[in-house]
Amino acid sequence: MHSTNGAAAPLDVPRGLAGVVVTDTALGDVRGREGFYHYRQYSAVELAESSGFEDVWHLMFHGRLPDPEARADFLARTVSLRRLPDDVRAALPAIARAGGPSGPLAGLRTALSLLGASAGLRPVYDLDAEHRRTDALAACAAVPTLLTALYRLGQGLEPVEPREDLSYAANYLYMLTGSQPDPARARAVEQYLVSTVDHGFNASTFTARVIASTGADVAACLVGAIGALSGPLHGGAPSRALDTLDAIGTPDRIDPWIRQRVLAGERIMGFGHPVYRTEDPRSRMLRSLAESFGGPLVDLAVEVETRVEAILAELKPGRELHTNVEFYAGVVMELCGLPREMFTPTFCAARVVGWSANILEQAEDSKIIRPAARYVGPPPPQPLPMAS
Amino acid sequence: MHSTNGAAAPLDVPRGLAGVVVTDTALGDVRGREGFYHYRQYSAVELAESSGFEDVWHLMFHGRLPDPEARADFLARTVSLRRLPDDVRAALPAIARAGGPSGPLAGLRTALSLLGASAGLRPVYDLDAEHRRTDALAACAAVPTLLTALYRLGQGLEPVEPREDLSYAANYLYMLTGSQPDPARARAVEQYLVSTVDHGFNASTFTARVIASTGADVAACLVGAIGALSGPLHGGAPSRALDTLDAIGTPDRIDPWIRQRVLAGERIMGFGHPVYRTEDPRSRMLRSLAESFGGPLVDLAVEVETRVEAILAELKPGRELHTNVEFYAGVVMELCGLPREMFTPTFCAARVVGWSANILEQAEDSKIIRPAARYVGPPPPQPLPMAS
Repeated sequence: MHSTNGAAAPLDVPRGLAGVVVTDTALGDVRGREGFYHYRQYSAVELAESSGFEDVWHLMFHGRLPDPEARADFLARTVSLRRLPDDVRAALPAIARAGGPSGPLAGLRTALSLLGASAGLRPVYDLDAEHRRTDALAACAAVPTLLTALYRLGQGLEPVEPREDLSYAANYLYMLTGSQPDPARARAVEQYLVSTVDHGFNASTFTARVIASTGADVAACLVGAIGALSGPLHGGAPSRALDTLDAIGTPDRIDPWIRQRVLAGERIMGFGHPVYRTEDPRSRMLRSLAESFGGPLVDLAVEVETRVEAILAELKPGRELHTNVEFYAGVVMELCGLPREMFTPTFCAARVVGWSANILEQAEDSKIIRPAARYVGPPPPQPLPMAS
Repeated sequence: MHSTNGAAAPLDVPRGLAGVVVTDTALGDVRGREGFYHYRQYSAVELAESSGFEDVWHLMFHGRLPDPEARADFLARTVSLRRLPDDVRAALPAIARAGGPSGPLAGLRTALSLLGASAGLRPVYDLDAEHRRTDALAACAAVPTLLTALYRLGQGLEPVEPREDLSYAANYLYMLTGSQPDPARARAVEQYLVSTVDHGFNASTFTARVIASTGADVAACLVGAIGALSGPLHGGAPSRALDTLDAIGTPDRIDPWIRQRVLAGERIMGFGHPVYRTEDPRSRMLRSLAESFGGPLVDLAVEVETRVEAILAELKPGRELHTNVEFYAGVVMELCGLPREMFTPTFCAARVVGWSANILEQAEDSKIIRPAARYVGPPPPQPLPMAS
């Protein structure tokens, strides 16, 4: 309810708050020049290669990787939270029907809002750290159930109840398809999910933290973050890169297709990242994952990557352009049988864990995030016109 | 998807971004030292005293008060948007059932999210200004219908269909109670609504603008803002001040009640504002509105205000404390027959117009709002523990 005036003199900073430090965090960071990002003190790529999704979830929520006992406890808690309350389940068909045109993120936004209300979530400001974590755990555990149920309802299929004996990733694929997934594919999806939990300070993470700074409940924060993720400038739409591969179609068409776009100055989806000056570390990890499956799509993707780099070196020397996370993420998800409209929602499912960790961290800070604006309109007060 | 590193050196600013100018705005401002706030170039209090809610809505959306022709056009557009699409209406009973414990704001958050999905709203980034305004108009016009329907369903009553022949405020009261309101009460609610449309740069307004800066759709932005408004640190809960009057009960109990709290250093709800150093201009306007109705509640409120100021002058000389907007807003809404659980939702209905104007303004700026965080955890990369 406050504004520029009445407080200290306003402070000018770069547009969009670029480079402005809003908070300290112990959750992780991105080192763009080094092509490195980390969750807490561990390399995120190493975690993706060696750890399960629940391990990383525990790391983000509790600050440490779980020992075997903590892992068993954590799993037992999260699997029991996969099942939806009856009132939420009953409302999903209506949400799926309405949500069609805006896609699954809008459906998840509505369903998670409903889940939070149904659970009677209290403001994080009124809770201790353990209760906040419980609320966040429940939201994160339910997201795959909500997403897959909404997807299946949209396809005219019955939702599949979650299983408690499968890992997060395997259960996600199981609820999506109704059959138990091939372990290699479940593990590939798990690696993708781990690699996507967090990635520095982005607009959706910031949104979650601004809402948390008012003391609002966990669902209020997550629902806002989903909204920010749905914005086209936020990025994170792995299906777009796959559409590029589709448009190219066959290896013989790669060169003319790319030359035409590079010469026209058009953007090639799946290439380029505003932070990484080297190869995107997620891209490297996902490429070797894709190569472990092999097949014509992977061959085409690798060839497109090689040719884009070569053609750029020829036509625009000095301008390096590497694949970003979208490029091979799309290939991996396609190989694992995920439908394209579920690519961004799958990304979102992992990111809900990262947002939640940020909400829990923000809730420890009692200071509301509330910047200022500068009024630049005509000077007030002007007399009201007679007609009004 | 970006972070501190890889860009320019991080910039340190005050905690919570206090005083940091995020954007220019032509929508209005608050002058805390002068006890003055304005919408565009007009005094907000003068607008509340002289204009209708739709006039101010038009002012915020179009930059000018409407002439009679523009007013008729604007009314015709908004009244036709009061009615809900069938799929949204059909889902409201499920939302009302689930939303009970978290209160009406959580229900509105869900219902507005659903409405946006049902309308197939597109990212603001992909729309021209006129289409964005149309989306925002539809959301603002539907909020009273959603709020009153959810309230009535929660009471076991059937929702009341909107009427097109009533003003925004009169139709709101009509949908809430099922009977046409007394014109004086409808006008009092309208004055309250006008006074609440906007109030400088606050956390919910900022949330709406951050989400809009990603290019997300209008509903995604509004749903995030509702979440921020629900946080206890945001403020804006007029029922709390009325609870104070209830607790005092009768004029003879005023002095001991207040002395006890002041001596204990406790906060008195409805008093004090972090920006205004003078009387809150909204409070002044709402007090004279309350006095135009009269009655024992108004007498008690005025007496409490007088005694709080006198007792403070005696016990804590030099510490001025005035009523804030909550104090007389609660009294006015009680006099107009609004149930207390609808006080904050009523505030929210007006504020949706202010948030929308901010979203429309932000959408003209193509720069995403994305600050940075500073990593302060143990230095990475640490080797993964063996157990993981």
